[in-house]
Amino acid sequence: MSLTKTELKDIQSLQTKKGRKLKKRFLAEGVRLLEEAARHRARPEVVYYAELTLSDRARSLIDRFAKQAVPTEAIPLRQIEALADTESTQGMVAVFREPPTSLAELYQPNFRRILLCEHIADPGNLGTLMRSALAFGCELIILAGNSAEPYSPKVVRASAGTIFGLPVAIAETSEVLELSAAKKIYLLASDISGEPAAVQLREIPKETQVMLAVGSEAEGVSPEILSRASSRVRIEHSEAVESLNAAVAGSILMKELYEIRK
Amino acid sequence: MSLTKTELKDIQSLQTKKGRKLKKRFLAEGVRLLEEAARHRARPEVVYYAELTLSDRARSLIDRFAKQAVPTEAIPLRQIEALADTESTQGMVAVFREPPTSLAELYQPNFRRILLCEHIADPGNLGTLMRSALAFGCELIILAGNSAEPYSPKVVRASAGTIFGLPVAIAETSEVLELSAAKKIYLLASDISGEPAAVQLREIPKETQVMLAVGSEAEGVSPEILSRASSRVRIEHSEAVESLNAAVAGSILMKELYEIRK
Repeated sequence: MSLTKTELKDIQSLQTKKGRKLKKRFLAEGVRLLEEAARHRARPEVVYYAELTLSDRARSLIDRFAKQAVPTEAIPLRQIEALADTESTQGMVAVFREPPTSLAELYQPNFRRILLCEHIADPGNLGTLMRSALAFGCELIILAGNSAEPYSPKVVRASAGTIFGLPVAIAETSEVLELSAAKKIYLLASDISGEPAAVQLREIPKETQVMLAVGSEAEGVSPEILSRASSRVRIEHSEAVESLNAAVAGSILMKELYEIRK
Repeated sequence: MSLTKTELKDIQSLQTKKGRKLKKRFLAEGVRLLEEAARHRARPEVVYYAELTLSDRARSLIDRFAKQAVPTEAIPLRQIEALADTESTQGMVAVFREPPTSLAELYQPNFRRILLCEHIADPGNLGTLMRSALAFGCELIILAGNSAEPYSPKVVRASAGTIFGLPVAIAETSEVLELSAAKKIYLLASDISGEPAAVQLREIPKETQVMLAVGSEAEGVSPEILSRASSRVRIEHSEAVESLNAAVAGSILMKELYEIRK
């Protein structure tokens, strides 16, 4: 079977921000990414594949989706390629419905760790932060300020599929601060003029819900958040370097929070 | 002044791997990157700038280079744009001579920490690892296997200028292993089936030279190196994620080595 021109164009529109916003759907491609989706029980609306290019691994994934009553559809390879963002689709592209992103809806008082990304505009950094967040026990990511769009192909890919395992809220900074005050969340800000993390993280009361705020490399966490932070921490490093990569800095702090509060 | 067509084409060739290999030069663009170069006393062969677009910060950097007798040359903005890899040159592009990359030449027995990158093909990951390496006290980076080319525009940019502050050797794995045996280097391999890093790193003899080996996400550190490693370490994280981003994993291990062996 082939997709009609209109169908193809419709799905292709999900490669753009505008199309995703309109249709509230996004694309994910390649065997590894879709295996992660399956592992996190994320259900595609439909999986397209090119019969001839499938590896055994890809074929068994298609079978797995089919058994879960996910519609799977064989289409020509050139159509798969037209739907893909990279050259390594391995013959598979799937359409997913965008999950809810409302903070009020996603927040749970029993979460122990929340990651707040402020102005993380680089898709690679955002995806990497998602991956580390899930690895180090964060239960929610909040995107504030001018952050990258979470369901863009680059972020989805850089997340290595962790985007299917972690709720992502999009919120205004003011909304985050209101929530943090109302729920007495311990707001920990990553800040190059803060206290050394090794010392400061041990001061956090054990049973508190912690929200770690990381900002962009250019500007850091906003003064709005810094002024309301319970504490500010920095990672100690040599003076030969001005600052760490934002995803590295955030990941190191999440890892330390994870170890201290297992 | 304008560059002639031939001059322009010659410099543009440095955007390609072939051109860099032939001319043993590379490009760096933008104020922040070139400020880092100046801070690390890396001397461009020539700095091109577009008079009209310069910020005060860019202008004072040009003056600083000029005072150090670095040739600086005003050219039309469209020529700067033709030389640039991104849209944010801030009106400045400089040409640098590629430093030596011979391991025998760059290795020093008094280095305390060395980073070995094996098959780090993603330029963003490689640049980020360079940045963390300098931040966490590594004195040499060795690239082995199928790693990205260190002086490509993407790596230079992702390194945030740290490439100007850290020697980078390119070597065969066999050469690295010979050196490590001859110099009795403690070879620490990042490996998902290794011992927990928190425990293992404390076992490293204090005065030993340590080389940390990090591999690609797909394949990890090669069996060749694993079989010769003094020890293998992993970063503990939730099972919800298969592995960390390679640059994050390497950075976390470098940070721990830095803290333990200050």
